[in-house]
Amino acid sequence: MIGGGEGSQIGPAHRLGAGLDGLFEFTAGALDHRPDAGRAYGQTLGLAADRSYGSWQDMLAGESAREDRVDLVTVATPNATHYDITRAFLDAGFHVLCEKPMTMTVGEGEEIVKAAHASGTVCAVNYGYSGYSLVRHMRAMIARGDLGNIRVVNAEFAHGHHADAADADNPRVRWRYDPAQAGVSAQFADCGIHAMHMASFVTGQEVTSLSADIVSCIPSRKLEDDAMVNFRMDGGAVGRLWTSSIAIGRQHGLAIQVFGEKGGLRWSQEQPNQLYYMPLNERLQVIERGEGNLSPEADRTSRVTIGHAEGMPLAFANIYKDLAEVISAKINNTTPDPASDLYPRASDGLRSMAAVQAVAESGASNGVWVDARPPMFRT
Amino acid sequence: MIGGGEGSQIGPAHRLGAGLDGLFEFTAGALDHRPDAGRAYGQTLGLAADRSYGSWQDMLAGESAREDRVDLVTVATPNATHYDITRAFLDAGFHVLCEKPMTMTVGEGEEIVKAAHASGTVCAVNYGYSGYSLVRHMRAMIARGDLGNIRVVNAEFAHGHHADAADADNPRVRWRYDPAQAGVSAQFADCGIHAMHMASFVTGQEVTSLSADIVSCIPSRKLEDDAMVNFRMDGGAVGRLWTSSIAIGRQHGLAIQVFGEKGGLRWSQEQPNQLYYMPLNERLQVIERGEGNLSPEADRTSRVTIGHAEGMPLAFANIYKDLAEVISAKINNTTPDPASDLYPRASDGLRSMAAVQAVAESGASNGVWVDARPPMFRT
Amino acid sequence: MIGGGEGSQIGPAHRLGAGLDGLFEFTAGALDHRPDAGRAYGQTLGLAADRSYGSWQDMLAGESAREDRVDLVTVATPNATHYDITRAFLDAGFHVLCEKPMTMTVGEGEEIVKAAHASGTVCAVNYGYSGYSLVRHMRAMIARGDLGNIRVVNAEFAHGHHADAADADNPRVRWRYDPAQAGVSAQFADCGIHAMHMASFVTGQEVTSLSADIVSCIPSRKLEDDAMVNFRMDGGAVGRLWTSSIAIGRQHGLAIQVFGEKGGLRWSQEQPNQLYYMPLNERLQVIERGEGNLSPEADRTSRVTIGHAEGMPLAFANIYKDLAEVISAKINNTTPDPASDLYPRASDGLRSMAAVQAVAESGASNGVWVDARPPMFRT
Amino acid sequence: MIGGGEGSQIGPAHRLGAGLDGLFEFTAGALDHRPDAGRAYGQTLGLAADRSYGSWQDMLAGESAREDRVDLVTVATPNATHYDITRAFLDAGFHVLCEKPMTMTVGEGEEIVKAAHASGTVCAVNYGYSGYSLVRHMRAMIARGDLGNIRVVNAEFAHGHHADAADADNPRVRWRYDPAQAGVSAQFADCGIHAMHMASFVTGQEVTSLSADIVSCIPSRKLEDDAMVNFRMDGGAVGRLWTSSIAIGRQHGLAIQVFGEKGGLRWSQEQPNQLYYMPLNERLQVIERGEGNLSPEADRTSRVTIGHAEGMPLAFANIYKDLAEVISAKINNTTPDPASDLYPRASDGLRSMAAVQAVAESGASNGVWVDARPPMFRT
Repeated sequence: MIGGGEGSQIGPAHRLGAGLDGLFEFTAGALDHRPDAGRAYGQTLGLAADRSYGSWQDMLAGESAREDRVDLVTVATPNATHYDITRAFLDAGFHVLCEKPMTMTVGEGEEIVKAAHASGTVCAVNYGYSGYSLVRHMRAMIARGDLGNIRVVNAEFAHGHHADAADADNPRVRWRYDPAQAGVSAQFADCGIHAMHMASFVTGQEVTSLSADIVSCIPSRKLEDDAMVNFRMDGGAVGRLWTSSIAIGRQHGLAIQVFGEKGGLRWSQEQPNQLYYMPLNERLQVIERGEGNLSPEADRTSRVTIGHAEGMPLAFANIYKDLAEVISAKINNTTPDPASDLYPRASDGLRSMAAVQAVAESGASNGVWVDARPPMFRT
Repeated sequence: MIGGGEGSQIGPAHRLGAGLDGLFEFTAGALDHRPDAGRAYGQTLGLAADRSYGSWQDMLAGESAREDRVDLVTVATPNATHYDITRAFLDAGFHVLCEKPMTMTVGEGEEIVKAAHASGTVCAVNYGYSGYSLVRHMRAMIARGDLGNIRVVNAEFAHGHHADAADADNPRVRWRYDPAQAGVSAQFADCGIHAMHMASFVTGQEVTSLSADIVSCIPSRKLEDDAMVNFRMDGGAVGRLWTSSIAIGRQHGLAIQVFGEKGGLRWSQEQPNQLYYMPLNERLQVIERGEGNLSPEADRTSRVTIGHAEGMPLAFANIYKDLAEVISAKINNTTPDPASDLYPRASDGLRSMAAVQAVAESGASNGVWVDARPPMFRT
Repeated sequence: MIGGGEGSQIGPAHRLGAGLDGLFEFTAGALDHRPDAGRAYGQTLGLAADRSYGSWQDMLAGESAREDRVDLVTVATPNATHYDITRAFLDAGFHVLCEKPMTMTVGEGEEIVKAAHASGTVCAVNYGYSGYSLVRHMRAMIARGDLGNIRVVNAEFAHGHHADAADADNPRVRWRYDPAQAGVSAQFADCGIHAMHMASFVTGQEVTSLSADIVSCIPSRKLEDDAMVNFRMDGGAVGRLWTSSIAIGRQHGLAIQVFGEKGGLRWSQEQPNQLYYMPLNERLQVIERGEGNLSPEADRTSRVTIGHAEGMPLAFANIYKDLAEVISAKINNTTPDPASDLYPRASDGLRSMAAVQAVAESGASNGVWVDARPPMFRT
Repeated sequence: MIGGGEGSQIGPAHRLGAGLDGLFEFTAGALDHRPDAGRAYGQTLGLAADRSYGSWQDMLAGESAREDRVDLVTVATPNATHYDITRAFLDAGFHVLCEKPMTMTVGEGEEIVKAAHASGTVCAVNYGYSGYSLVRHMRAMIARGDLGNIRVVNAEFAHGHHADAADADNPRVRWRYDPAQAGVSAQFADCGIHAMHMASFVTGQEVTSLSADIVSCIPSRKLEDDAMVNFRMDGGAVGRLWTSSIAIGRQHGLAIQVFGEKGGLRWSQEQPNQLYYMPLNERLQVIERGEGNLSPEADRTSRVTIGHAEGMPLAFANIYKDLAEVISAKINNTTPDPASDLYPRASDGLRSMAAVQAVAESGASNGVWVDARPPMFRT
């Protein structure tokens, strides 16, 4: 693991997710940009002294030299460093799971996709909500045609945690709305993109073009805290996506509804163990995580019996479980379980970067429709 | 009552709403465009033979000649006739409650507003969902500043009752998507406009401009069955409004969320007896219809004790209760209870017509932002 | 109407329910035990001077003498007077709808049942919650065997409106827990009995025996404010019934769950437009009031289209609608629609009285099982 | 770990819970009653060959002889063996976490309590639902007086997974209702006891006496599949507890409501991240897991940020987290964090056994009230 030092929020989440099934062991890390602090903290967490590195460069050198090099490198550093680190490890033949955003620009994103392809390594990006068992089941239902052609996807990621104007200058909040630190987009890049990835993930369609209406409800903010994005997908679906950080009364707010010719589906991250399904001209049904006869994709990502809640850490662990299967297949030269080959990948990270760019561009131009695809995917 | 003959759905709803409190008695009508059928059906419903008219023109003549003329004329005829009938009765000094849409064009809408003003009569338009007790309370809370300045309003009216492609040629459904019969808009004009009226009603702000993304998910339809409308209001609020008739799994789907500087509110027509309120930095609270210490506007429109559901017919009746108070005040030359002066009026009907026009115009031009105000309100 | 004078809560509810469909007109009344007040208030409400009576005895005499005597007498006076008034009007051949409790003793209840039988009149008792459309549908589903044999009924009526010890001496609350005024039971007689009636109504089974655990959570109370009642029914069902007035956080709290061999049902008065149905080994389904292909019993008691809430006043009106049909059939010597013959009747009032008595008796004896049937139904 | 061999459901759950925070490492086990199978499976899971034992007796001998003996022994074997194994390890000075039921008789339970006391070891019993963060918060709120004296606790554990009569002879189901295998109680002992433990846990009161109404809805069953238990607690609270395995439509069904003088609380295991709180005379509030300013007990058992669901495996892990803290304090001779000293202990296992016995006894005698305390706690 690179990053995730003392006091980090995402570091423990990764270690929890990676270790939960016992499929990965935490054996090496460069946890802090301050070499001494990183080395010391790594040892507190049980790393051997010679694998608790002072910098990612040291770790790259050290692990490259070992026969028992790590199977997977998790990159959980500040956003601006993702590209360099991910690129370097991929080029050295390591498999990488990079936190989102994968890069700061579309161009860098294309470089990563090419690098992963060239090295034949796995490069995953952590859109972790796609690991939920019932999200996997939505994808499976849609893929097998339960809903027919998809007409409309309505996705949301709206919370209220940045609604307090009195708190807007708090550094913990302010940087997110500062272009110098956050890039071209705040709330869409931070949260909305998860909803857009989910729309793609469950429908199996990619976003082609979009129109965005962005606003800063707290006037001192230079980047948006509320955005509405309309989009079109390559399989014909129409998308509506609302994201907000000023929606007081909502805690997390990631939710998705999919409407096809033959039925509708509805799911919310805050109550992830139920999926609401309405077949055309029938009654609303409640699908429970863990019920019998779901899809292989759902079964593989479900751990406890029906009626017991599973939550976000287990969804996160499912991404690691996918990676364990896929990397293990690469190592052993076998075919991975297709139900595991669903981790978000570098191309998702690249597409997301292009969508963020497109939202910023459209938002700055009265919502003009723009191409949301990265250049290399525009055929 | 004009219209609402045998087999009509809206006729009984009006008679139920009007009669529920015993404030109006049903004494005259021209219920059918077929004179004999209308006269006969009126008598079945208890009208005197000489006040069960064969046509609205006869009723206008007959009632105008009486000393005990009706206090209020309800117009529940096909949309295309609303303007002529409403106009004629207003000009003759009758108070009118017209079904929505009030007119077919913005120009006609302006004529109605002027006619009502000139004659000093009450001209109401039936945006009946604004009659719910907790909708009235939302308006009161916002008006007294509980939420501070309003930042974002998110309104929906999305159902799935026209999602079946196999049913699209059913005449009962088809006419709604046929420009010759329905005008320039289908789903927005039919349902979305209720959500937009509610956004205005609860915030006390008017829509100034909008951008619409409209689609026909069933390709044979010439008018939209799904639309996303972004808008701006004259008090600074930003609006997002989604309306759909292909959202399988949703029964009615009118819902509204309002986010201000100091709190958020959430309400849904399908569970109208609860209002979810989140003051900034506090916990989500559930406001119950009928609880103590609500606003006068809520108390006046609440009939049974807390915990007993009240539904749509009572909301509808509240519009009639408003009208009874206001008309009675006119007759008796007194001041009506200000908490009753909230019925939707001709200006709302006009603004709605302008919004429908704007949605059609923007939707046809890639979502370009257009002025959504009627010319006479553009200062 | 007898009782329901100025300031009464139940009086307007009856007039609303009776008048809502236009099937009954309010034409005569003795609204107050103070003759002048009653006569004056009746005239304010539009009664003719000669039919706004000073006492129920005057009304009995006056109406008996008229050819156009009232079709139905509603008794909404204090509980202790129900027996005398109901008995007198039944004996004179009037149809009666009596508020609950029908009588103060089981013996009186048997007298009423006999009197109604002897005179051939309709004697209804107002267990108004049985009028909800989806409650009617539960009954229809169970009657036609959708659930198979019923195993367990779990009913609740638990609210928190008498939980405040500081308010216990408020006269508005105190009388309910005073045996001199309320009889042998407080919370069970006031609320629990509605849940028990509903258990009988939906299953079509009668309670035969019961065991009660009663407590007074506020020690100054001589009667119970919380009770748990286990019971057995004549079709083999087992019952659990909890009622409370100290359950802070619940507003109304009437709810029922029924479990049979082939499925389960769940309904709550606070959200009366949804019925949750789980067929054995299938998924939970949501039945919506107003959906297509429900039972005739449900359709007859549903007024507005699916997705629009209907509430308690319309349930109440359904009881009057039943009575209109049944009384009109008696007058015209026709057969009433069987779907309307579901109003709660004198035998229900009697059985309820016996259950109240049994709860008090068992509760006073450590929950010993007692016969809950009135003597005349013990065969 | 003893038990939890290949194909076991509870084994992986324990390994997941124990390992989740990295506080325990899985280092020794006797996983199967078939020595070879157990040894082999242990090695598959990564145990060293010399610590993957063929029997619990071997493990007791082996670990007792080591300096680096295991810190905690988890007993997850069939119920009838719990006493012998737990007793033996306690006597040898090991800390033990035993699956429920701790023993098969009250007498054995008393022996365990005494043995743990004599050896000074930790003996925990896995009432794992008490590990949820918001359950811990309920306990803290009640302990600090937010609800005042507790009046009524209403607990449920009702599911429908054994409702199918056609499945009653399936061996996987049948043994639970067979006294020879399951003891004196089925559904209460299996599920109801979790609800009763939770009632004690959150109120801080112990059950003193109870009355039970038990039935077998599927007649071939010798033990109950539905039970209603009324009880009294030593702090004055009244309890109502319903448990069922024939409640079709409910998936898990553990839920609790607590009503005190000053407020009410409501929580359900299926939606464990929300706690509903109603202070007397105020509005219902939603407490979210992870929100600021909760109790230390809640904070300590919360891992991810507000709005992200946490589920059962994390609740389970919290029990292990408690044990890690308490055992580590014993080893290091320090004082454990009082917020961690909440794991269910041998005395809970003993009290539960006495309650199961009392339910069987009362249920067999028409619900007579019986003492529910183990003899050693009756003073």
